[in-house]
This record gives sequence, C-alpha cells and structure tokens, in this order.
Amino acid sequence: MSDVKKVVLAYSGGLDTSVIVKWLQETYDCEVVTFTADIGQGEEVEPARAKAEALGVKEIHIEDLREEFVRDYVYPMFRANTIYEGEYLLGTSIARPLIARRLIEIANQTGADAISHGATGKGNDQVRFELGAYALKPGVKVIAPWREWDLTSREKLMGYCQQHDIPVDFSSKKKSPYSMDANLLHISYEGGILEDPWAEAEEDMWRWSVSPEAAPDTPTYIELTYEKGDIVAIDGVPMKPHDILEKLNRLGGDNGIGRLDIVENRYVGMKSRGCYETPGGTIMLRAHRAIESLTLDREEAHLKDELMPKYAEVIYNGYWWSPERRMLQAAIDETQKNVSGVVRMKLYKGNATVAGRRSDQSLFDESIATFEDDAGAYDQKDAEGFIKLNALRLRIAAGKGRKQD
Amino acid sequence: MSDVKKVVLAYSGGLDTSVIVKWLQETYDCEVVTFTADIGQGEEVEPARAKAEALGVKEIHIEDLREEFVRDYVYPMFRANTIYEGEYLLGTSIARPLIARRLIEIANQTGADAISHGATGKGNDQVRFELGAYALKPGVKVIAPWREWDLTSREKLMGYCQQHDIPVDFSSKKKSPYSMDANLLHISYEGGILEDPWAEAEEDMWRWSVSPEAAPDTPTYIELTYEKGDIVAIDGVPMKPHDILEKLNRLGGDNGIGRLDIVENRYVGMKSRGCYETPGGTIMLRAHRAIESLTLDREEAHLKDELMPKYAEVIYNGYWWSPERRMLQAAIDETQKNVSGVVRMKLYKGNATVAGRRSDQSLFDESIATFEDDAGAYDQKDAEGFIKLNALRLRIAAGKGRKQD
Amino acid sequence: MSDVKKVVLAYSGGLDTSVIVKWLQETYDCEVVTFTADIGQGEEVEPARAKAEALGVKEIHIEDLREEFVRDYVYPMFRANTIYEGEYLLGTSIARPLIARRLIEIANQTGADAISHGATGKGNDQVRFELGAYALKPGVKVIAPWREWDLTSREKLMGYCQQHDIPVDFSSKKKSPYSMDANLLHISYEGGILEDPWAEAEEDMWRWSVSPEAAPDTPTYIELTYEKGDIVAIDGVPMKPHDILEKLNRLGGDNGIGRLDIVENRYVGMKSRGCYETPGGTIMLRAHRAIESLTLDREEAHLKDELMPKYAEVIYNGYWWSPERRMLQAAIDETQKNVSGVVRMKLYKGNATVAGRRSDQSLFDESIATFEDDAGAYDQKDAEGFIKLNALRLRIAAGKGRKQD
Amino acid sequence: MSDVKKVVLAYSGGLDTSVIVKWLQETYDCEVVTFTADIGQGEEVEPARAKAEALGVKEIHIEDLREEFVRDYVYPMFRANTIYEGEYLLGTSIARPLIARRLIEIANQTGADAISHGATGKGNDQVRFELGAYALKPGVKVIAPWREWDLTSREKLMGYCQQHDIPVDFSSKKKSPYSMDANLLHISYEGGILEDPWAEAEEDMWRWSVSPEAAPDTPTYIELTYEKGDIVAIDGVPMKPHDILEKLNRLGGDNGIGRLDIVENRYVGMKSRGCYETPGGTIMLRAHRAIESLTLDREEAHLKDELMPKYAEVIYNGYWWSPERRMLQAAIDETQKNVSGVVRMKLYKGNATVAGRRSDQSLFDESIATFEDDAGAYDQKDAEGFIKLNALRLRIAAGKGRKQD
Repeated sequence: MSDVKKVVLAYSGGLDTSVIVKWLQETYDCEVVTFTADIGQGEEVEPARAKAEALGVKEIHIEDLREEFVRDYVYPMFRANTIYEGEYLLGTSIARPLIARRLIEIANQTGADAISHGATGKGNDQVRFELGAYALKPGVKVIAPWREWDLTSREKLMGYCQQHDIPVDFSSKKKSPYSMDANLLHISYEGGILEDPWAEAEEDMWRWSVSPEAAPDTPTYIELTYEKGDIVAIDGVPMKPHDILEKLNRLGGDNGIGRLDIVENRYVGMKSRGCYETPGGTIMLRAHRAIESLTLDREEAHLKDELMPKYAEVIYNGYWWSPERRMLQAAIDETQKNVSGVVRMKLYKGNATVAGRRSDQSLFDESIATFEDDAGAYDQKDAEGFIKLNALRLRIAAGKGRKQD
Repeated sequence: MSDVKKVVLAYSGGLDTSVIVKWLQETYDCEVVTFTADIGQGEEVEPARAKAEALGVKEIHIEDLREEFVRDYVYPMFRANTIYEGEYLLGTSIARPLIARRLIEIANQTGADAISHGATGKGNDQVRFELGAYALKPGVKVIAPWREWDLTSREKLMGYCQQHDIPVDFSSKKKSPYSMDANLLHISYEGGILEDPWAEAEEDMWRWSVSPEAAPDTPTYIELTYEKGDIVAIDGVPMKPHDILEKLNRLGGDNGIGRLDIVENRYVGMKSRGCYETPGGTIMLRAHRAIESLTLDREEAHLKDELMPKYAEVIYNGYWWSPERRMLQAAIDETQKNVSGVVRMKLYKGNATVAGRRSDQSLFDESIATFEDDAGAYDQKDAEGFIKLNALRLRIAAGKGRKQD
Repeated sequence: MSDVKKVVLAYSGGLDTSVIVKWLQETYDCEVVTFTADIGQGEEVEPARAKAEALGVKEIHIEDLREEFVRDYVYPMFRANTIYEGEYLLGTSIARPLIARRLIEIANQTGADAISHGATGKGNDQVRFELGAYALKPGVKVIAPWREWDLTSREKLMGYCQQHDIPVDFSSKKKSPYSMDANLLHISYEGGILEDPWAEAEEDMWRWSVSPEAAPDTPTYIELTYEKGDIVAIDGVPMKPHDILEKLNRLGGDNGIGRLDIVENRYVGMKSRGCYETPGGTIMLRAHRAIESLTLDREEAHLKDELMPKYAEVIYNGYWWSPERRMLQAAIDETQKNVSGVVRMKLYKGNATVAGRRSDQSLFDESIATFEDDAGAYDQKDAEGFIKLNALRLRIAAGKGRKQD
Repeated sequence: MSDVKKVVLAYSGGLDTSVIVKWLQETYDCEVVTFTADIGQGEEVEPARAKAEALGVKEIHIEDLREEFVRDYVYPMFRANTIYEGEYLLGTSIARPLIARRLIEIANQTGADAISHGATGKGNDQVRFELGAYALKPGVKVIAPWREWDLTSREKLMGYCQQHDIPVDFSSKKKSPYSMDANLLHISYEGGILEDPWAEAEEDMWRWSVSPEAAPDTPTYIELTYEKGDIVAIDGVPMKPHDILEKLNRLGGDNGIGRLDIVENRYVGMKSRGCYETPGGTIMLRAHRAIESLTLDREEAHLKDELMPKYAEVIYNGYWWSPERRMLQAAIDETQKNVSGVVRMKLYKGNATVAGRRSDQSLFDESIATFEDDAGAYDQKDAEGFIKLNALRLRIAAGKGRKQD
C-alpha cells in the first residue's frame, strides 16, 4: 500500500476528515495535502488551516469557490429546470464535480498521485467524487477510507482520536443526530429518525428556513431579471450569481420556502430518505419556468422537458464531467439565447408563486391569443384543416375497423 | 349544407350553446339532439332540459358522468404524474375525450350523422372534441359554429337572440370577465386582464379556493390509501374515485391549495395565459409521487419520468383516443401493480407537503440504507468496482487525451 | 385574389410548373419570378431560362446549389445517422429547406410578396416548402396551385396548355409512369404500380443503380476519410462535399447499392409507398456509424440513437428551420469533434460493408479489450462490485417478494 | 470459502467448464450440479453427460431449450425491431436470461445455494448471467471462476488439466483462434486478429453463411406470415418459432445474408470488436419492419423507434429480468395486436430486401394515397390550414425578430 507518495484530501476541518488525515499518513506513509473550500456551507473555512497544521500537514489549500460554484455549475443546471425524480433539486450532486476538479488540479500542482475524500461506501458522493477524478486524471489513485478501514462505529473513531491525539471538540454544539451536507444551493439531512419514511421530520432539524407557520403574515414580492437563462439582477439591482443565490436563500428561508422531504433512489442501488432545504433554488426553478413560458418556442420547451430527467440523472449519478453531459448542455444552452426578461415572484409562507412575467423576447402575442376580435391575425377556418389532417390517420384506422378505445 | 339530418350538440344550457341550437336548426335545417353532462362543473345540469325543450329539441340527454370521469380518465392520468409544461395538471384536457365519446355514442344511438360543440377556433378544445369524434366514428360530420358563423361579437350574439326569441337571463349573476371551464378536476380562467402576462390575477377571480392568506392558521393532516396507483380511501374510509376527488377539492380549497397561473403553449400554435384551480389534483400529484417513491423500482420510475412529457402532450393535444396513448398507458399501468400503501399529507396555506409514507410493498430497506452498522447487508467494498467500471470509458478517453471539461 | 404583386416560383422547367407560371399570371394578375436550382437532379437547368422567357418571365434565377446543398444540409443530417422509420434516408426532405430559403431570399431581393411551388396537396413537400417559407418570412403569401385550381387531371392540364400556347414536348422520352424527384442525395419514385404495396418494383424503374444481379462480380474497396463527422476525402484524395457525394453515388450505383422500397407515414396523415435510390447516402450512413464506433463515447452514442428518430421526424415533417432542429443539431454537433479517421468500405452487389476502421481519436483500447493477458490494465475483480451494486435494486425487490418474471 | 454446499454450473462440456467443475469441487469442497442446454448452438449436448459423469458429477441436467428460447425471448425482442448501437442484433445477449433462469430453477430444485458460469471478468456475459440470477434469487451465491482463480493463461489451464486428469481432446478440429458463442439466433466471433479494428475478418472464420460472392446467382423468394408481430409460417406452412428461425438461418446463410463486423461498447466500459452471423435474424428484422409499415399507426411506430435504443440497451446490459424491461415490453406488445399479414422477401447475395407486403389489417389506403383522382377521399384544401397552424409558432417568432437560421 506504500506506493502512494502524496494524496490530496477533501478536508472539512471536522472530526472525520481529521481522522482521515492521520489515517492516511499512517496507513500509506504518505504526505497529505488538504483542500478546504468555501462553497457556501455557512461555516468558516479558515479554522481548517490550524487544524491541518496541527496534524502535520504542510500543503494546505483553502479557497473561496462560491462564485465559481454558482456561475459554472448551479446556473447551467437551472437552465434545464433540473429536478431528480420529480422533486430533488440536486443540491449535493452539483457541488461534487467542482470539488473533484479542484482536487485533481491541486494534485497536478503539488505532484500528488492520489486523492481522498470522506464519503462513505453507501452513498452517491463517493461515486461523484471518483468519477470526476478519474475523468479528469485517469491514472489517479483514489483512496476512500470509509471503504477500507475498520473504524466503522463512532466509538472506534473516538478511540482512534484518543490514540492519535486528535483533539475532539466536545464543547461545541451538540452533535446533530443527522448526517448533513451544505453548500450555497442547499442543506441536506439524512439518518436519525429520517430512516423511518413514515416519521415526519422534526421542526428543529431545519436550519435555513422558518416553517411556513412561523413565516411572516404578509407576502414579499421580488422581481428577478433574466439574461440568456440566468438571473442577473434582483429588483433591478445587478448582482453576481452567488450573491443572487445567497439573497434568494435568505428571502426564501425567511418565508418558509424550499423544504423538501423525499425518498430517493441512490445510484448505488438502494432507496434513502432525505430532507433538503433549497430556499433560493426553489424560487429559481419556478421563476425560470415562468420566463421560459414567455420566451421559449413550444417544441424546444417540450424537448427540454423530455431531456431533463436524463440530464438530472447524469448529474445525480456523478457524470458532470462526461461527454453525455456536455452533449445535453449544448442542447440546453442553445435554447437559452432569448430567455431574457423579468419575473415577479410572490413569496409567502412556503409558497413561491409567479405573479407576473414580461420580456422583450416574449413570444406571447396578445393580438392572436385574445378572445376578443383579433382583426384577422388568426384565421379560425385554418383550424378545420389542421384538425382534419391530424385526425386522418385515426380516421383511416377507425374506418378499417380498428377499435380506438 | 343541408346534407346533415341530425346533429348531437354538447349543450351546456348557457347562452352560447343555446344560440348554437337555433343556429344549427336554421343553418342546416336539421334536428338537434342535446347532450348535457355533469362532470362536476358545480352547476345543476337538469335545468338544461327545459331550456332545450324551449328551443324545440326533442331528444335531450342529461347524464351524471362524474364517476366515469374520475375513474376512467383522471385516475389513469394521475398514475403517470402527468403535468404539461412542468405546471399544468390538464384539468380541461382530460374531460374532453369523455365528452367526445358520449357525443359519438349518442350519435350512434339516435342515428345522428353529425356532432357539434361550442368551442372556438382558436383553442385546444375544438381539437380535442374533434380528434376524439373522428377517431371513434371516422365518417362523422363535425360542425363547429364558431369557425363558421359571423356572430363574432357579443353584440351580434345578442342580436341573434333577440331575433330568434332566445331568452337571455339578465337577472343572473354578473357575467364573469373570464372565460371559464370547470369539472371535478379543476376550474380554468382565461381572458380579461389575464391577457397581460405581467398582471397578477385578481383575488376575486378564484372560486374554488381561499387564498393562502385566508386559509386556516393550523394545518390539516390527511392519510391517503393507495391501491395499484389509485387512491381508494381517505383517512381509512374507502370511497369512490369521484367522491375522493370531491373531498380532496374541498380540503385543498379550504387550505388555499392548487392555484396556478401560467403561460402555456396551445396545440394550435400560440401562447396563452391561463389560471387554474386544481385543489384535489395538486394533493394527488404530490401524494402519488410519494407512494411511488417507496414502491417503484428506480429504473421504471426514471423511465416514467422520461415518458411523462410525451404522455402529457398526447393528452393536451387531444389524442386520448389514439394508439400512442394506449401504448404509453400500457407502460404506465404495468408499473403500478405494487404502488399501494398510505401517504400522510399536511395541508397548510397553499402547501401540500408529504408528512409520511408507508407501504407493505415498500422497497425502502432500512437495514441497507442505514448510516449505522448494517450487519453486512451491504458490502461497501463493492462500491470500488462499481465506480471503477463505470469510470472506465471516461478514463480511457482521458488517457487518450480527450478533454473532459 | 389580386393582392399579390409578385410571386417567386420554384420552377423546374417542366410541364407542370410551366402551367403554373401561366396560371399565376392569369389568376393573380401578378408578375412571376422563376427560380430554378441545380441540386444534382441530373438534368440541365439552363434550358429553363428559354422556357421561362417564352412564358414572359422577366426575372429568371438559375443557380447551382449543389455545394451548399451537400455541405450545409446533407452533411449535418448524416452526422446523426438519420433515418426515418428505420429505413428512409430523407433524400427529398433534406432538399426542401434549401429551396424554401432561396425562394424567400429571392423574394426579398426582388420585392416579391408571395412564393409558389408545384407540390400537391397530399404530400409532404408542400408542408416542407411552406413551413420553411413562413419561418423565414412570416408575412409571406404562399400560393399552392395544386390546392387551388381545378386542373386535377392530366387531360385538363393538357387542355390548359393548348389554350395558352404552352409547348408540350411530345418528342421527349416517354413520360415515366412514376412521380419522381431527384437531387444529389437520391431519386424517388411514387405512384403507378407502386400504389400496390404487394407489387415488386419493376427493374426498369430504377435509374441510378444497376441491380445487384447486374453489378460486377468483384468487389470495390474504398477508403473514406472523416474529419469531425464529415467525409473529406475518398481514397486519400481531398474533395468537396458535393464531389464526394457524386462520386459515392457513382460507386454505389455501379455496385447495385442503395435501392429501397418502403411504405412510409406521411406527415399529412396517410401511408404511401415509395422507392428510393440513395447509393452514396447508403454508403455514408454505414461508414459514419463505423467511424463513430471507434471514436464516440458509449453514452453519447446511445443518446444520439435515442434522439435520432425525433431529429429524423423533425426533418421529414419540414421543420428544418425551427428551434427544435437547431437544439438537436447543437447536441449532435457537440459529439462530432473527435469523429475523425478512416473507414474502409467494401462495395459488392448491393452490399456496403465495413471492412476496417482506424482513427487517431480511437477509444478502442486493445490492451484492455484483449482476451490475452492485459498486464493489469483491467482488474477483473472490479466486475464483482459492479455487478453486485447494479443488481442491488433487483435483489431488494426480489427479497421483498416481487416477482421478476 | 467452504460455505457453499452445492453449486449449479452452466456446463458446455468443453475444456474450460470441465476445468471449472474440478476447480469448484476442489476450491469450495462442494457438490457440482451441471446444466447443459441446447439453445441451437449446433453442437450435440448429450456428450456432456459422460464428461460430467467422468468428473464425478451426480446431478446432470441436459435440456433442449430451443423452442422456449425463440418463443419467449427472441420473438418478443424482435417485436421491437431491436438493434444495439445501430447494428447488433443482440444474439448473445438474448440467450443469457434464459440460461440464468434455468440455473436458478435448477438451484431451487436441487437445493443448491450457488451458481457458477464460465464467463470472463471482462465481458458482458458475466453481468447478464449474474443480474438474472440475483433478480430471480436474491440470496444466491455467484461463483465466477475467471474472476477468482489464477489460471489466467492457456498453459496454466493445461497444467491444471494434467494435474487433475481432465481429458483434453487434442484429436478434435484445430482450436479456433476466435472466441465464439453460438445459439439459434447467431454465432459470434471475438479475439484473434479481430482485435485490430482495421483488419478485415478472414473468409474462413465465418461458419454459418457463405460469402455473398459464393452465394447463388439467382435470388430466393420467400413469404413470411405474421400474426400479432410474430412469424407463424414460411411460404404458407405453419411452423413453430424455433423451426422458423432454423429455416431462416439456412435460407439466409445460403444466400450470404447476416454477416456483421462491428466495434461495440460493452457495459463494463470498453470497446470491443465483434463479428456476428445472424442470417435468420437479419431477414426477420427487415420483414418485421415491412409488416409494421403497413399495419402500425404512425405515432406508435415513431414512439417504438424512440424507445427501441433504450430497450436494446436494457437487454444488452443484462436487465431482461427487470421492471424496466417489462414496462417497455408492455408498451411494445400493446402495439402488435394488428401486426399481421404477409411479407415477401428476396434473398440474394447478402441482400435481404422486401419485395412486397400485404395485410388484412393494412392501414395503407390506396384511395387516399393515390396520385390519381381520389373521388374526394382527401380534401387538399385541408392542407392549407394544417400548414398554417403548424407554422404559427414559427411565424410569431419570426415576426418578433427571432432568427430562424
């Protein structure tokens, strides 16, 4: 096992990945490079530096990737109105390819021959990290401690810490009973009582949003400005993508928007229960459909809807860095050239509803759609031929005795 | 034009179709048979009898089709989690094939050679009525007065009434500024100020639901029992499909659930703005996904999601009575054999959220999904091979110099 | 009807469109501009000038569009391995958008307000011409004489010619019993005895190919060089797209390749029988799949195959100039960046078979694929985990008593 | 490793699986049950009995599965016009689920707790066997010797034979340089010089067909009778499915039909070169499309074409025993109710071409399709409205300044 010389670890600064640092040094007799990123998880990343130093790490990478995350990953994904299995906004899935990419780039910079992460052997994240890593650096060695070691219980982990003088911060807030993951797009909860799909999530589990019950009694209205499928301004104020998402998270969370409680199908083959808070993303999904409803052609809109489940699956399963994702993205992006305009959203106690949409690129033609006299813009007699030729195949079949019901 | 001897008209009893009765008699010199159905629109149908008699109609058909409507049309459609363009629950679309079928059956019974309806030449409904009619009776003659006559304004219609002694009920409630259509699944609104997509719908337009603001401050919980994809009981009380939908409409409406405001793409080629209230349907859609999340296999679930937009389009465009609908239905129904169990829903101020789901057919395996020790139910080491072979094609490509980003 | 001032007619120089010139002048009292294009139909186009002049036409456009036709229409279509209904290579369909575009461009240049064509009211071509025209110039007036006039039989047409002094060339070769259409991609035959789907086409109908029986007894081998999905050279000699197709037509035709006899579904709703000769296209289709088999990633290849029927339908139905075609093209073209290399084809008595393929971009990895010792390039033990996790959902279902057969 | 008590082995009687018998007995100290099936591979299966007995096997199962194979696997697959990656008729893939099923059934009968097979760790067959086995008996233990043992070269295998007194038949025909697999649908070749995709297959590799060059100089015509999508008679003589396929194999092989040479993408992630002979299947594919061209509705035909690649992938990857295959099969079978009639095929030197098709269920309507006067069956004026409404969305977009090219 000693053929690894240097490994780049996705390091959170928490207990588990601190144990991994030590375990890697010990097991592989190799140098560990840590990589800690701020992708909007809401915790300071700088403290990870001292912790890594204390573990003897010499090359420590700490980066603010929030802008890149939203601009190059979240935004392109939302152009497709992406949801997995009809519900999930892919908050965890979409952060992984960015982490994988940076792990590999740092490996290349530091001359590391391996990467490592703290994801378990049962989940999707190991797949997403590793598919990304292999796609970007095919010869890389991947070390997934949770699949290798025997520290399979909390007690064993604690024992390892004691043995190896890894400081365990008992003073901090009580350990959550949930397995959580957060970034600028969402926070997720798994485990604990959630392992019973009949059990309702407890109110004090949720961290980013108030309950609809606790939200204000008056609605908040906002206007979102789109350019080529992306939000570029809130209430007319131009902002960067990650600032927009941050603001929408706050607005959504304040109004009880974006809680989700589902049972989903993991790529590794089992069902799992997850709860998610995606306040900003929930608003974005609704608003994007609204601006598209004005500006997209019908057939490209329908084709997008047919391709979306596949695109969502590709991302969920960890194939962001793949030819099929690029192929789908090319199709999606081609449709967004005219997706510009303004959507007015009403936020109220869990509801994000569309209150209006307008666009200079609008294909809504009032003069044709009107129930009033349209001055000849549309000739109703055309409908007869339209219907008769569309019915022709059905009439021929019925005429030949085919049963139609 | 006198080659029509007898025509069956979809007759609402309202002003427009009363004018059509007279116009048909006069223009085609033919006998008119009226057909009026209760599909849950919320208005008495029996008064249509006297009105038709007053117009000289001899064969008058009045039927309660609510049970058949929900059982044979709404329920099969909901098995597919059907939504058109990501939003619309197809409330109008799904009622048309039933009307078309009864029109043709009555034509066959009464020896009529034509059918007629009051849909305009700009909308989808003419297409849905006529495609259905042609598919079920290929030689039928279809008369669409709105595409033929010159009564193109309200004034001309009124003039025609005066000329022909058709009673106009001025005492009744003020004419709504909206074009509306209702059945047990939904009520729709078009026209008026809605023709401006930037204008928010007025509160007093909505008829079936209170606003989220006006809904109760405490949530309502209900349990829906599913058998093979269909709801068969509410809170443990077995009910018929149409009674279930009626009750869910009430529960949803009381809690401000099911309002929708969209711009949609019509089959005849233009965009139109519509508002919809679908209280029960909105609950059903959410709940059905929840019971499927426990009981469907991943791959069949994903395939359903990929097929759904096509299935929705088929129904929206009026092809219920078609080989492609039957083909899709066969695939959908094949998946519903094990979709049984109970879903607990929380209804609160516009939100219909899943609070729990359980099933004897559940594929959720707690012993495998758990973050705790699974006693060997799942071997984490399998994940390595799984990932490595899934990555193989990407690694080979990267190894040959293909750029992956 | 006199609101048309100038009309651009797709003019072949043949009898039918000559009648149309006169009929347009007379019926619409308008100026007629003729447009005649060489798209490889194999007949001189220059003679159309004198014929048009004789009919009093002042603006006569005669153009050689072969290069543009193959480069901008045929080639992009072949990147998708496009076939309609499993058989048809879309030879007629793909020529129509180019004609439509030029008609509109000439209308814009000459200040014409209408276009006209000689396609009948039963076929697909009217749809393709007119959808293209409307998409490119939404206010254009389209005149389709075959849908308007009463010259519905050959006798009436002849009578019209006599009346109007239109010369009918009786000396020329006997009128074919088939309705034919040709361009550089194919020649099509409809009508006559082909209207009986049980009747085999007569040998003397075919014009571009010898029968397999009559083809040489020794095979011909050729090498086709691909760059980014397009053929750029034959046997190492760089050629322009239309020269390549012309040469492949000759090579294919000489070897009895490319005859097709099918019943197809027209967009206007009926089935029709058609025979087609597509010698070069048949070779291209086979060869393109071969070069893709080496150079495309599996998942993009499969996605292309899933999208292809839709893409074919879009082209067949006449929607080349549409957002959905551009969207699909963007996806297809994205995949072709590495589709470069050489395919060796064997042509023999109706068979176009792949005899070899090589590429610098090849993803075929002999060291991994080999049945011999692969020196560790592939770890067979990975397969166990791969299979077990892929089987997991099936095992869980079976373990819960789901029947799998 | 000694937790296995009894294992059912897919036993061919050849050298490799004979070694496996011994290796299983030795390695697992367990009883081995052999299962040998005649699925039309063209070799006697009965000799496997003596060989198994000589190896000490007590429970020996030898079965003729040809009828079941074609009736329940090949025929359903052909209803979908199934081809993988545009070329491959899935001859190997479709036999595996049947073998997997019998392995499990025999395991259940004999009280075995494991199954075993002789497929390597690099190929698709291991996946197909094992996915089937796990789906049908989730707790089964699978032993794949090629992934476990160290007999990784022919020399080591021979050494093992010598050590264990396994008779090696040197007198038999020279060992083929190819890895081959055969059943009633096809014979496949891999390895040897085929590992170079540029190398043309040698003529003496092919076993079931003559070359087109060597085929008769006169064509053979046959008539295939279909009922509900399946061939039930040849030249009017009713036959069982496997007798039909056998006869078509002979007819096809005699006429040089059904050779295929491709590079394909394996499920385990690499590309591989394979040559296939599928004489009967090639005729069946062509003929089935022909009978469908007359009897299927357009939209169901197109939907079948869109679903086919997915269906092919499901079978190729080994998921015959899965919910998604059953779902797709339900859709496919729904369309075949009227796919009845007769197809006339011409077989000549590698070409299987359609010479005619007729059906009592035909939807081809000569009176409508005709270029001659149709006596009003079709009103050409309907086309105008059809086109204008189909163009409406494009016109609106163009009118608003959207570029359409």
